Amino acid sequence: MTVRVGVIGGGQLARMMIAPAVELGLELRVLAEDEGMSAQLAATAVGDYRDLETVRSFVRDVDVVTFDHEHVPQEVLRALVADGVQVHPGPDALQFAQDKLVMRARLAELGVPQPDWAPVHDEGELQRFIDEHGGGAVVKTPRGGYDGKGVRVVRAGADAADWFDAAGEGEALLAEELVSFTRELAQQVARRPSGQIVAYPVVETVQRDGVCAEVIAPAPDAHDRLVQVAEQIGRRIAEGIGVTGMLAVELFETDDERILVNELAMRPHNSGHWSQDGSVTGQFEQHLRAVADLPLGATEPRSPWTVMVNILGGPAEGALEDRFARAMAEHPEAKVHTYGKSPRPGRKVGHVNVSGDDLDDAVYTARAAADHFL
Amino acid sequence: MTVRVGVIGGGQLARMMIAPAVELGLELRVLAEDEGMSAQLAATAVGDYRDLETVRSFVRDVDVVTFDHEHVPQEVLRALVADGVQVHPGPDALQFAQDKLVMRARLAELGVPQPDWAPVHDEGELQRFIDEHGGGAVVKTPRGGYDGKGVRVVRAGADAADWFDAAGEGEALLAEELVSFTRELAQQVARRPSGQIVAYPVVETVQRDGVCAEVIAPAPDAHDRLVQVAEQIGRRIAEGIGVTGMLAVELFETDDERILVNELAMRPHNSGHWSQDGSVTGQFEQHLRAVADLPLGATEPRSPWTVMVNILGGPAEGALEDRFARAMAEHPEAKVHTYGKSPRPGRKVGHVNVSGDDLDDAVYTARAAADHFL
Repeated sequence: MTVRVGVIGGGQLARMMIAPAVELGLELRVLAEDEGMSAQLAATAVGDYRDLETVRSFVRDVDVVTFDHEHVPQEVLRALVADGVQVHPGPDALQFAQDKLVMRARLAELGVPQPDWAPVHDEGELQRFIDEHGGGAVVKTPRGGYDGKGVRVVRAGADAADWFDAAGEGEALLAEELVSFTRELAQQVARRPSGQIVAYPVVETVQRDGVCAEVIAPAPDAHDRLVQVAEQIGRRIAEGIGVTGMLAVELFETDDERILVNELAMRPHNSGHWSQDGSVTGQFEQHLRAVADLPLGATEPRSPWTVMVNILGGPAEGALEDRFARAMAEHPEAKVHTYGKSPRPGRKVGHVNVSGDDLDDAVYTARAAADHFL
Repeated sequence: MTVRVGVIGGGQLARMMIAPAVELGLELRVLAEDEGMSAQLAATAVGDYRDLETVRSFVRDVDVVTFDHEHVPQEVLRALVADGVQVHPGPDALQFAQDKLVMRARLAELGVPQPDWAPVHDEGELQRFIDEHGGGAVVKTPRGGYDGKGVRVVRAGADAADWFDAAGEGEALLAEELVSFTRELAQQVARRPSGQIVAYPVVETVQRDGVCAEVIAPAPDAHDRLVQVAEQIGRRIAEGIGVTGMLAVELFETDDERILVNELAMRPHNSGHWSQDGSVTGQFEQHLRAVADLPLGATEPRSPWTVMVNILGGPAEGALEDRFARAMAEHPEAKVHTYGKSPRPGRKVGHVNVSGDDLDDAVYTARAAADHFL
């Protein structure tokens, strides 16, 4: 029988599951937040994912539930599990993507390398953490942050005064050491409910203003030890917290050649968009295979290099689509992926993948093609 | 503005346009023959494509019309064009895919190499053609044939008696010489309304019982002259008959190293399914780019070899989907594409693409993966 996969959230990640679902013969159903969202074509319901009855009604006609984002409340997730619904990733795993303090504590238990960290409840605690860590720290709100939101570099406890004021009684912020890193990397793995895991090659990610701007796959100048350690970290986390579906582990590579875990995402991730065109199995196909508990696909690159460049913001005037003709004419080898969103400053509205034998050429072409959309 | 592409026909070719349409940000609308067809996800209307008012109503909300098949009557097509609708390919081109006698006459005018042929109106004319061509011929009904239907090898005029009886007053059958060929090839090109043409590498096709069974891309042992001649034939036909969208030219390679045109198809074609995974630009994306008059994409192979094997018939018992797990487990590098059809003997219900550096390995893996679905 046709497996029906329900996706909660109608953003671009749900949208990019449509293509592989069609080819695999899976029926995709999406609970979108609004009309006209990115995944509109597969939207079978519109409603609030925080409302249990809305979600219950949506999942009635699906065989497995997965996500476009990590914001579905634990109460809703646990009620679905209690109803007997297949939820991947499940609430026990998703909590580590929903709360960064819980994540840090669990990674510590798993022995995974990460920056020094501590929960801080007030300015005084934060000031002590800063004093003990060279005069600076990164402060994060444990919940709800993404794309650089909820993350701040501070030099004094008072720099986070507004966040402490906004925090509830007894709630802590997360303080992390300011890591001196040479670059950022990302490791993706996919894990099935039955336990099979596959790993993608570790990639280099370039962030601008806290938002992923470019990805190079595989990471250049990655010696064997780096590749192995990154993969081991990905596998250890996926198994240790019982992820099902795609897991992205954002990593720092430090001056002294250590690899430290920065963030986790339990869904297809911007750092894996390259795989749509650059890997034998794209991450959206892999996520669907994993959550449907189908055997996982090969993760080998199709080309020596694939470069992904995000289209951030889109044109100041006119429609994104009107930019296609020139970009395509000048770069026939560029693969453009659009999200069906109206451009607005800083918004991710699409991305470009370019594969090739020469890294410099691929970087140049991907950037040049993406620039046509701005 | 989002370009809306209307596809007449809801079969697997329309279905496989869904994935690239989503990524390109084109809105796909399908006029399906029935409920529950392959392209169901994008079906916005159900009705008879031979009925002008049904088609007129469907095309009202699209910017360009294209096709899943070549069976829309000329009267309907010409009425749309008279209404000012963008139709690609247009009726002037499509007539050559709809009537093989008209096609043969036009190819002769274009000087394209093809088998000897003649219109034959009765058994006597056919017998004379046979006598002049070594005692055998291929007889074809000019209209409505596909996948080996409407094609018959004959040794005597009387062998086509039933078809002459069924033909209308004054209607001829097409007689062609029995070509002694070593293998069959296919050349695809895409052409935009504005005239840009790109060519894919020529591929080898293996037919069984008149149905495409396997494709190897590029064609093995294809020396430069063969590659060039095939591409020139494809370009000449596309320009000569004004094709817009994808054109597939089925070719015979003869004992004496000639290339002769067998059949034409003006749409994505089974011989091009390899390109979904094996080329920088898959044929379904290319067709959409061409009919929307967007610049065409690069046609380079992503791998030295890609092998496509059709899934013909599907399992005698149970659902196709139930065969996925073993095929995927044993062949993680195989790309399976399903058409959402119920299996029935000889019916095309999906295909498998496998790419790699070694042709024998790719052939073995693609066949082995496809076998799991039978």
